[in-house]
Amino acid sequence: MSLNLDTAQSIIAEALAAAQQQGFKPLTVVVLDAGGHVIAAARQDGASNNRFEIAHGKAYGALALGMGSRALMERAEDQAYFIAAAAAAIGGRLIPVPGGVLVRGGDGALQGAVGISGDSSDNDESAASKAIQATGLTAQIA
Amino acid sequence: MSLNLDTAQSIIAEALAAAQQQGFKPLTVVVLDAGGHVIAAARQDGASNNRFEIAHGKAYGALALGMGSRALMERAEDQAYFIAAAAAAIGGRLIPVPGGVLVRGGDGALQGAVGISGDSSDNDESAASKAIQATGLTAQIA
Amino acid sequence: MSLNLDTAQSIIAEALAAAQQQGFKPLTVVVLDAGGHVIAAARQDGASNNRFEIAHGKAYGALALGMGSRALMERAEDQAYFIAAAAAAIGGRLIPVPGGVLVRGGDGALQGAVGISGDSSDNDESAASKAIQATGLTAQIA
Amino acid sequence: MSLNLDTAQSIIAEALAAAQQQGFKPLTVVVLDAGGHVIAAARQDGASNNRFEIAHGKAYGALALGMGSRALMERAEDQAYFIAAAAAAIGGRLIPVPGGVLVRGGDGALQGAVGISGDSSDNDESAASKAIQATGLTAQIA
Repeated sequence: MSLNLDTAQSIIAEALAAAQQQGFKPLTVVVLDAGGHVIAAARQDGASNNRFEIAHGKAYGALALGMGSRALMERAEDQAYFIAAAAAAIGGRLIPVPGGVLVRGGDGALQGAVGISGDSSDNDESAASKAIQATGLTAQIA
Repeated sequence: MSLNLDTAQSIIAEALAAAQQQGFKPLTVVVLDAGGHVIAAARQDGASNNRFEIAHGKAYGALALGMGSRALMERAEDQAYFIAAAAAAIGGRLIPVPGGVLVRGGDGALQGAVGISGDSSDNDESAASKAIQATGLTAQIA
Repeated sequence: MSLNLDTAQSIIAEALAAAQQQGFKPLTVVVLDAGGHVIAAARQDGASNNRFEIAHGKAYGALALGMGSRALMERAEDQAYFIAAAAAAIGGRLIPVPGGVLVRGGDGALQGAVGISGDSSDNDESAASKAIQATGLTAQIA
Repeated sequence: MSLNLDTAQSIIAEALAAAQQQGFKPLTVVVLDAGGHVIAAARQDGASNNRFEIAHGKAYGALALGMGSRALMERAEDQAYFIAAAAAAIGGRLIPVPGGVLVRGGDGALQGAVGISGDSSDNDESAASKAIQATGLTAQIA
């Protein structure tokens, strides 16, 4: 299974279904390829204006530094100035809270990342991880 | 019919189906709401890295100035410096070639825009217009 | 043969050797992966301050739109305002003159791009193409 | 010994050799001249997407304020808002953690800077310092 458009659309559908089942607030889901470029995105009705940018920054930042955005948060807790500077160095495309999850194939190779924003960061991350795993790919949250 | 996520996903599906039927190159489709914020996006396998940004700029620019991106091209033919300055003023989010199409409801009210990039600008625009009309909404190309 | 750091360093060495043999001015060579991220770069003694940015923009722009930078120049000759807008949409990282060459593997898969700046655009492109081919990979100039 | 391309390539080779010997994670090394312009760069296989930008920001920021990036970190610990503002003022090109090391000649004259990112900041800095000294130049870490 590779992270092509079909898989990305499945991840979005799975994430939105899981969110609905658990009564989450409206989510925005962004799927990026390994180079950090958008494959697919969806913002649910009722989500606020710039949720795309927030979800994108979780996923892009994860790929930028090679760790799930939960690890970016941990680094921000220790050295907020480093994460602020890293975000500025890559054009603001780094949001250091959970919900940006790396996607790996069966061989462990990096295939891209999923970013979700809209509910609590923990719930955003949970929806991303479940959706990735539902497609047979592996989720890395930190 | 309003331009919510379901409609946006239908527009994307219609555009990609029309493109496949006519043998277009891989397309990227971006659907924005009336405020210029991403509702949904899809980049077909084989599309180059930054086609999201190009498709986005066609749609965002159309909403920015209130005309389809074909009209932006006409203005660029007359006054390239105006379009360059307008693009700079809005953070580069304006691509003045066909393929950015405004979406209006039955009452003529503006609901958003669709941007497509990947094949010739004329074909990009044609796919966008057909996809919008297939959902019962109205396409404005200029 | 894939475009890893060893191959990138070989491409740089080949390009600088070819340039010296033909008496080119000091060159700057940038090698990007398929996602547009720097693998390696070298600026020869005597090259001016921002040759890295010029060489980078040739390679990054080629990957952004999926064509060698010679094709970007042809498009700029036809529609300068489109190329100016595309450059602005991707943060200025697009230089539409020859010297940005796509790198493909034996199977045709895109592996990255090489950008060279310093001599005439034609000579920059020639050095990039020869260097890519010397490593057993395929060069796409347009 | 001056910081020309040959020396920069030696510094990169020394840093990567030292890193391999000590089992560091994949490193990215950027060498800048005294004006802050790229001389050479290398990103090892397996390093994440934007390590070039992080390594570059350590070196560029060091030159920007005339101190190794360890001193930038100390200033960030005291006055995070100053470092954030300084980074913003120079386009985000300042990363205030160790690993950005100034390069001086035998006479103490500033010749450039080396930035490394990939392992812990302390290890990044250690690799940079050793590599600079191996070429006969002097490393200034703070």
